[in-house]
Amino acid sequence: MIELARRMSRVQASAIREILKVTERPDVLSFAGGLPAPEAFPAEALAGAHADVLGRDAAAALQYGPTEGHGPLRAWVAERMTGRGLPASPEQVLITAGSQQGIDLVAKTLIDPGDTVLVEAPSYLAALQCFSTYEARLEPVEADEDGMRVDALERALRAGRPKLIYLVPTFQNPRGTTLSLERRGRIARLARESGVTVLEDDPYAELRYRGAALPPVAGIDPAAPVIHLGSFSKTLAPGLRLGYAIAGERTIRALTIAKQATDLHSGSLAQRAVARLFETFDYDAHLRRLRTLYGERLDAMLAAIERSFPAGTLWTRPEGGLFVWVSLPRGLDAEELLGDAMRDRVAFVPGAPFYPAAPRHETLRLNFSNRPPVLIAEGIARLGACVSARLRAMAEAPRIAG
Amino acid sequence: MIELARRMSRVQASAIREILKVTERPDVLSFAGGLPAPEAFPAEALAGAHADVLGRDAAAALQYGPTEGHGPLRAWVAERMTGRGLPASPEQVLITAGSQQGIDLVAKTLIDPGDTVLVEAPSYLAALQCFSTYEARLEPVEADEDGMRVDALERALRAGRPKLIYLVPTFQNPRGTTLSLERRGRIARLARESGVTVLEDDPYAELRYRGAALPPVAGIDPAAPVIHLGSFSKTLAPGLRLGYAIAGERTIRALTIAKQATDLHSGSLAQRAVARLFETFDYDAHLRRLRTLYGERLDAMLAAIERSFPAGTLWTRPEGGLFVWVSLPRGLDAEELLGDAMRDRVAFVPGAPFYPAAPRHETLRLNFSNRPPVLIAEGIARLGACVSARLRAMAEAPRIAG
Repeated sequence: MIELARRMSRVQASAIREILKVTERPDVLSFAGGLPAPEAFPAEALAGAHADVLGRDAAAALQYGPTEGHGPLRAWVAERMTGRGLPASPEQVLITAGSQQGIDLVAKTLIDPGDTVLVEAPSYLAALQCFSTYEARLEPVEADEDGMRVDALERALRAGRPKLIYLVPTFQNPRGTTLSLERRGRIARLARESGVTVLEDDPYAELRYRGAALPPVAGIDPAAPVIHLGSFSKTLAPGLRLGYAIAGERTIRALTIAKQATDLHSGSLAQRAVARLFETFDYDAHLRRLRTLYGERLDAMLAAIERSFPAGTLWTRPEGGLFVWVSLPRGLDAEELLGDAMRDRVAFVPGAPFYPAAPRHETLRLNFSNRPPVLIAEGIARLGACVSARLRAMAEAPRIAG
Repeated sequence: MIELARRMSRVQASAIREILKVTERPDVLSFAGGLPAPEAFPAEALAGAHADVLGRDAAAALQYGPTEGHGPLRAWVAERMTGRGLPASPEQVLITAGSQQGIDLVAKTLIDPGDTVLVEAPSYLAALQCFSTYEARLEPVEADEDGMRVDALERALRAGRPKLIYLVPTFQNPRGTTLSLERRGRIARLARESGVTVLEDDPYAELRYRGAALPPVAGIDPAAPVIHLGSFSKTLAPGLRLGYAIAGERTIRALTIAKQATDLHSGSLAQRAVARLFETFDYDAHLRRLRTLYGERLDAMLAAIERSFPAGTLWTRPEGGLFVWVSLPRGLDAEELLGDAMRDRVAFVPGAPFYPAAPRHETLRLNFSNRPPVLIAEGIARLGACVSARLRAMAEAPRIAG
């Protein structure tokens, strides 16, 4: 068991810490996880869909199924994504165990030990962790308010021969930023010209609270090698473990072979229940409710940060998704802050582990989807007070020492 | 996408063919898949458990959950396996997406390109395929009616430094044979003495129709490095995609890290529904019904083979599981036979792909769990007629040529 521990040493401790937060102390106001609001799960509709499928079609819903996924669900995804700007046929869709499995299958299919993967800095922690299990070399590409910088990407493509470019283009995890339309076009062109595959991990795109929807990078140029990943975790429920990969048919066949060796197929019952749900459930009305709910929480968090954090704090202003990214005033360390915060029963994730290299220790990630506005205000007030207290202590420290 | 295709070239075509058979033509009597009988799924109890969990506890059942699995289900597995001869604590249990994912996680954790994995010849196709995706070197170890030969295993351990020994000890896929108690003890001792990990893939053990249950290899010597894999696919329903790995806590932690990077966790709803089912459902009575049903089908298949296949045919007489293994009379080729059989609307899996090397082309695998006795008799009669016809054609061929 030593091999994996070695491969993962860098990100392991933090990653484990994060997942442990899934089961959190009820007395802690946590902004740490990436948890959707459980009150927004369409529980009744999902219960009805499960009952319906198990009542009518249990023999198929409980049996082994095709690795590619349940046909009607693949067709639904293809039609939906075509409408969202990524024209696709059902044969171009592979149903996965969340978009996390999409990352893993692409890595398993493409990455040999020592291969370079270009990633935003910072980037999604469990993707970095996944690439590390395949012994990829992670190379950071600078990102700003409009996502990955194309000039930095061009330099990285000229400097080496990366195997993969990994992007979370919309409401990025952890920063909440969105890749601009202009950059989407330029990155698609770079992918086509260089032949380097782009892995577009896009689980948050339907959670937009302001501004206009942007087309997926994969939809811009059919000749560009882009694999698109989506998920039902953020819009329906993560506990179903369902997502999808969209790519050319040849790529989908390769990913399907990899998935077959990994887990044979995703849950038959869950797939059929979701396909059944879409036959009768008003999904767009559900998304509108979700956007209203989360939009209010985002506003509450941005207002609370503005109100509660001391001068010198910087933060992103996302148009959607689940996360806001904060840079603390100069000299503060988010991991040290976490100790203070936990004593005051507030939690967040320090930003350092999200960096593939050169971590910025003053950064932290805040999730706003899992608590109502009043608790967001309360928690951010406590957290802001912790930051201010640290700042004061830092200012006084030299005097005490002197 | 070339890399994976290269790695998998040997087993890919056959493996894909097999999985395609999951969705079969209704007019074909298929003994090809490894499908449980859908009429034996506890559909009503599972429907009740899903409704109950979604009614009472939807917020948790639809949310992200711990990578290790749902606590009460881990505890149930630990208690059940302790009763079956493998003493385990809940912390020694990882819930997986079927036992297939257990194979993948162990490979991901242990195997570096070029490492040797010792496997029975023949062995489970999707395990060979999985090890190949990690670029393992597959080394066959001879097996007989009592499973893997320990003398051959000792020679292989002396000859090289394998990373893993992969075994399906009970009602093996594809041969249906069972590793004897004496060999289980000797293999556990070899694992302890050599330090080479044994991966015990044991999804069929509870499907015993005659003879006495044997303890898992993992239960024989707590100091031996044995990872045990089990599954709910054969005893409840494969469509739930739930299985488990049992090992020492340190190994379980390593596998958990690997699983986190792979799919975060297995389905929360499915896990909770199964845990809920076990609170009220008489699982042992269900297993007794399943054993009666499948035992009759096994008897029907053995009688039909005896009755319908020409002299010179050899076959295994399993005490449980899902499969019978047939060796055709000298000179016949199972892949050629499959063409004849499909024309007569009978299907099976040729044996050659199950061999990691030196395939025996006269072998084939028959599944008996998915059809009632009357259709087993009918299908095997047709298949036996195909074999006899091929034999006659072979006998007549020289005369025609001369």
